Amino acid sequence: MPKVSPLSEQDVQQGLRELDGWSVADGKLHRELKFANFVEAFGFMARVALLAEKMNHHPEWSNVYNRVTIDLVTHDAGNAISQRDLDLAKAINQLLT
Amino acid sequence: MPKVSPLSEQDVQQGLRELDGWSVADGKLHRELKFANFVEAFGFMARVALLAEKMNHHPEWSNVYNRVTIDLVTHDAGNAISQRDLDLAKAINQLLT
Repeated sequence: MPKVSPLSEQDVQQGLRELDGWSVADGKLHRELKFANFVEAFGFMARVALLAEKMNHHPEWSNVYNRVTIDLVTHDAGNAISQRDLDLAKAINQLLT
Repeated sequence: MPKVSPLSEQDVQQGLRELDGWSVADGKLHRELKFANFVEAFGFMARVALLAEKMNHHPEWSNVYNRVTIDLVTHDAGNAISQRDLDLAKAINQLLT
């Protein structure tokens, strides 16, 4: 049994309705962001990093200059999407408002 | 003509001899690093980010928890490896000593 419950497909879809900019790609919550430049992009990443560490849930992410790509999935849920991913996605969106 | 001269294969190989941990993968300078945890990994990324901004040359990179993968290539050299990539790789290695 995984340590964290994976969400049902229905629960993921329900969660997505409240998450602007996110989709499911390759079984992970996925968002791509574009900033004005590298400083803005990395500044955002630093804020997400502090958030992720506090929530003890970390993104899979990449950065190329002003672009940041984020994938969220829960290792402890058998690499499925869990409530933790929805919560982190929501917290990331709040940083962007 | 590209704005920055690409290095010859020979120059890249010569540069690699002085760059512990780096190889060429997919036409880019490539290094994978593993840290004790996310805080150590992101702390390293923050230091690289400041360095990259100062050098005005930015990595393509990704992070999954304690792992950081870096690829260096020069857009202004027609997406080839240039001296800028060797210089940034060297500066990154100096952070790790």
